[in-house]
Amino acid sequence: MEADSTTSAYVFRTGYEVRLACRRQQFAGQTSGKAPSYLQANLIILPKRYAYEFELFCRRNPVPCPLLAQSATPGNATLLKSHVKAGGAPGPPLRLAEDIDLRRDAPMYRVYSRVDGRVVSEDVEDIAHLWQDDHVGFLLGCSFSFEAALADAGLTPRHVAQGRNVPMYRTTIPLCPAGPFSGTYVVTMRPYKPEAIEKVRDITRPYVETHGEPIAWGWDAVDKLGIKDIASPEWGDNPLSMDGSKPFDDSEGFVPVFWGCGVTPQNAVMTANLDGTVMAHSPGCMFVLDVCDHEVVGQPVV
Amino acid sequence: MEADSTTSAYVFRTGYEVRLACRRQQFAGQTSGKAPSYLQANLIILPKRYAYEFELFCRRNPVPCPLLAQSATPGNATLLKSHVKAGGAPGPPLRLAEDIDLRRDAPMYRVYSRVDGRVVSEDVEDIAHLWQDDHVGFLLGCSFSFEAALADAGLTPRHVAQGRNVPMYRTTIPLCPAGPFSGTYVVTMRPYKPEAIEKVRDITRPYVETHGEPIAWGWDAVDKLGIKDIASPEWGDNPLSMDGSKPFDDSEGFVPVFWGCGVTPQNAVMTANLDGTVMAHSPGCMFVLDVCDHEVVGQPVV
Repeated sequence: MEADSTTSAYVFRTGYEVRLACRRQQFAGQTSGKAPSYLQANLIILPKRYAYEFELFCRRNPVPCPLLAQSATPGNATLLKSHVKAGGAPGPPLRLAEDIDLRRDAPMYRVYSRVDGRVVSEDVEDIAHLWQDDHVGFLLGCSFSFEAALADAGLTPRHVAQGRNVPMYRTTIPLCPAGPFSGTYVVTMRPYKPEAIEKVRDITRPYVETHGEPIAWGWDAVDKLGIKDIASPEWGDNPLSMDGSKPFDDSEGFVPVFWGCGVTPQNAVMTANLDGTVMAHSPGCMFVLDVCDHEVVGQPVV
Repeated sequence: MEADSTTSAYVFRTGYEVRLACRRQQFAGQTSGKAPSYLQANLIILPKRYAYEFELFCRRNPVPCPLLAQSATPGNATLLKSHVKAGGAPGPPLRLAEDIDLRRDAPMYRVYSRVDGRVVSEDVEDIAHLWQDDHVGFLLGCSFSFEAALADAGLTPRHVAQGRNVPMYRTTIPLCPAGPFSGTYVVTMRPYKPEAIEKVRDITRPYVETHGEPIAWGWDAVDKLGIKDIASPEWGDNPLSMDGSKPFDDSEGFVPVFWGCGVTPQNAVMTANLDGTVMAHSPGCMFVLDVCDHEVVGQPVV
């Protein structure tokens, strides 16, 4: 890790450097662009009694909820059971991180508790004091991975080029429920020209652990997904025109392309009315792992 | 295998007996209720160039398209690569069938070809003469499995009690596309009292390889799924009232409960406009395997 002239702009060479800096409380910021090419993950921590049904929920909805790994046993914050195969190959699962502590290695955590029947949240730098023997942590894939691949192919997502957050929308497409978990898909949106869509699909398809190819595209998909207003996403920044001067619309020949989004499982957990303390990373402050994006890209099996 | 007084009513003790009778062209009928408790599967056979994207399609939509196994290598009709773990446990995949021939062991096959741009189908007893070196066979789970579990709990599905086929409906819920494969969910429906639904969910939830728990329930789910007319399913038999005297409606205190259905992947394949010969089992004439339903029931992992 090297600090440059401003204290907020650290340069990290590996995912492990990010985790160690978080553990030592030297870094508490957003991870977009940190330790480029290292796999970043969403974190969700639940009481053990919900763990089996949450795992099922992820397995039933793998596009928005790609389950990478979970605590090897309940209460274990330092050893993961990985669900990822190297390049989709047979053999033992890929070890995602060697020295890891789910309680300290995210830059910032969000803690959800119920007070007088309402869910309240608080952001904290570590959760060691809140972690209990029956907590189970889950790591889920994040679309930062395929954005680098799109950029490498000359198809840099517009929000990346504009230095903005990706727009995320609530949809009306139902998830397959499992136990107390249900809800609808949340999607991210990146504008592309219609003639680029097959290439965009081909590039993102192999990223099976990080949402994979788009789930819908084109202006008619806005209605099909039940999105109320493309200019007003529920999360992230509003999408803009090419030069950033006005809202994104159909006047420049681009169409919206939608992918599954890691906010989906968080949203499902937060609305599941669970008992006990539920924790997650703070938005944008992801868990960074030891493996690189290209190691989890799927390969044809036959 | 024992033939009883009518030639059409064979009694099979195992899945292997069913397969051997098919292979010897002694049996060509529906498999519902044959070799009880043995796992039955949907079969889809595609040219190799579509195999990777079809596998991805199943993995992205595991509730309607639960992939059990596929040809170990392209062109191989007698050795399967299994994707099923015994009871969801770690370790090598469960071997689903010892002596198997994808070209001969289904009671009846349906062959789809394109003639003058239109898809035409033909039912045949074996496909050995049509199988090519680049064909890849896929076996997918079927909901016969959890119906026995429901019956054991005193919740026999109505169509089973009435000796009818399960009603199946087209919905407007989009699947997650993969390459040329897309479409919408097809669902099966079984009526239950509202107070039985949590028990029905709990019983079917562990059947992760055979559609698992319901995806929606209640009268409002009919609209939510975009089902046009509950009395007129697109496949199977019309649902009836308790005594079978009139169409199923809301007058007897039952609500519709919907599950993912194995017609979903078949429908997606048939509408994908593929080149080459595509083959499947004939409706209701399933592949019967060597493992029993209870061996593929999922277990809590943590």
